[in-house]
Amino acid sequence: MNTDSVLYEGKAKQLFPTDDPQVLRVVYKDSATAFNGEKKAELGGKGTLNNQISKLFFQLLTEHGVEHHFIKTISDYEQLVKKVSIIPLEVVVRNIAAGSLVKRVGLPEGTQLSHPVVEFYYKNDDLGDPLMNHDHIAMLELATPDQVGHMRQISLQVNDILQLYLEQKGLMLVDFKLEFGVDLSGRLLLADEISPDTCRFWDNTTGKKLDKDRFRQDLGNVLEAYQEIYQRLGGASHA
Amino acid sequence: MNTDSVLYEGKAKQLFPTDDPQVLRVVYKDSATAFNGEKKAELGGKGTLNNQISKLFFQLLTEHGVEHHFIKTISDYEQLVKKVSIIPLEVVVRNIAAGSLVKRVGLPEGTQLSHPVVEFYYKNDDLGDPLMNHDHIAMLELATPDQVGHMRQISLQVNDILQLYLEQKGLMLVDFKLEFGVDLSGRLLLADEISPDTCRFWDNTTGKKLDKDRFRQDLGNVLEAYQEIYQRLGGASHA
Ligand SMILES: Nc1ncnc2c1ncn2[C@@H]1O[C@H](COP(=O)(O)OP(=O)(O)OP(=O)(O)O)[C@@H](O)[C@H]1O
Ligand SMILES: Nc1ncnc2c1ncn2[C@@H]1O[C@H](COP(=O)(O)OP(=O)(O)OP(=O)(O)O)[C@@H](O)[C@H]1O
Ligand SMILES: [Mg+2]
Ligand SMILES: [Mg+2]
Repeated sequence: MNTDSVLYEGKAKQLFPTDDPQVLRVVYKDSATAFNGEKKAELGGKGTLNNQISKLFFQLLTEHGVEHHFIKTISDYEQLVKKVSIIPLEVVVRNIAAGSLVKRVGLPEGTQLSHPVVEFYYKNDDLGDPLMNHDHIAMLELATPDQVGHMRQISLQVNDILQLYLEQKGLMLVDFKLEFGVDLSGRLLLADEISPDTCRFWDNTTGKKLDKDRFRQDLGNVLEAYQEIYQRLGGASHA
Repeated sequence: MNTDSVLYEGKAKQLFPTDDPQVLRVVYKDSATAFNGEKKAELGGKGTLNNQISKLFFQLLTEHGVEHHFIKTISDYEQLVKKVSIIPLEVVVRNIAAGSLVKRVGLPEGTQLSHPVVEFYYKNDDLGDPLMNHDHIAMLELATPDQVGHMRQISLQVNDILQLYLEQKGLMLVDFKLEFGVDLSGRLLLADEISPDTCRFWDNTTGKKLDKDRFRQDLGNVLEAYQEIYQRLGGASHA
């Protein structure tokens, strides 16, 4: 197997095969994109930060018994993961109203939700990642009802774990997006990444946004925010 | 009580109080609107046709034990209904892909769905009637989980009843929208209307559209289509 040729190039990461057919090498890129790819920039250092931050979150989830694809980082911007067949759904968990929820239901940004809200979006750029209900998911056979139930349950568990952990770091977990996949033995695994690209983090006292919204909303100091997250999680300074 | 002053004026109907506080008088208007009110026209005779067609469908549902708000028609364009507090959700049942489902999931119009798909939309013109999942409905307290379950169940039952009936009239029931309300004693009742304004009907053999899509898509002969539906359901000719 030629382990040099990219298997898949996404907006934020590249996937490469390895000598082990069950293992992929993920390269975290410095590209930042938003609004379904309409807005683009290169942010030198983002790839490394997300690689490291993702690693820390996946390690935290290991401690709590959540099954995921992460194996280990092999360089500043590369990690090995278990190869899965990605379920084409993005699972979003929300604790505080922000982003598309504000537009959908008209609640002001920052509204505390009394219970976490779980949403499933169809991973389909051409359709603009539309919201799906259970009937849509079954109709398109995107996942079995069992898988949908498990993804919801695991996502809520991840929310509990991350929320508690981040609170101790002075951070609010506003919302986040997860992806799941099925490995060769049919096991459902949490996959993809957990980073400021895929979560909203707000400082607990100032409310300052420390995530990709700084890029989406042109708030400036994008990389500094990612760096701040990494340091609060106990990572070394890369400044 | 002044029974002359309108209680609520919608895009297609007016509601008036009656001497009985539990009963409303509904006036079916000739106005046609689409795309959240952006497109408008007056279609002389539509009000009368929808009043009569709704009546026929509600009577059919009575025969099958479905509880609803309809009492009786009192003129060509008026009917009496039980007053309810409307649950601000539009329940859509789909058998064949059309309209917003085509845009959402990318299936070609006319695709037969293997199971009926049920959707809940928030009745909120300012927000553009967004799709809701169960968590959104609970978050906004639009309905209790129990009510959501019952609305789904009743909507699927209505689908079975209407589909079978319409097939005998040479019509495909592509999809339809229902509204529910709660009466003074807390009972969940099917409300609003069931008409070519709120359903998609296609001729079984030619596929000809016989519903509001003729207006939405400028296909012409809108009123003739409503008239055709009324006649197929056994109504007298109003031509
Ligand atoms: N363990 C894994 N095995 C296989 N594929 C994975 C795994 N983890 C993540 N992926 C997929 O790899 C790709 C990561 O690339 P990236 O995040 O750049 O994609 P993207 O541009 O955000 O979105 P898209 O999924 O539309 O390409 C995603 O498609 C993701 O679903
Ligand atoms: N039995 C009932 N009791 C009280 N209200 C009802 C009843 N049946 C229907 N309604 C309400 O009466 C109104 C009917 O008017 P119409 O169909 O013209 O409204 P619309 O313009 O389509 O939409 P909107 O509901 O946004 O006004 C709707 O708001 C509907 O929910
Ligand atoms: Mg991605
Ligand atoms: Mg209406």
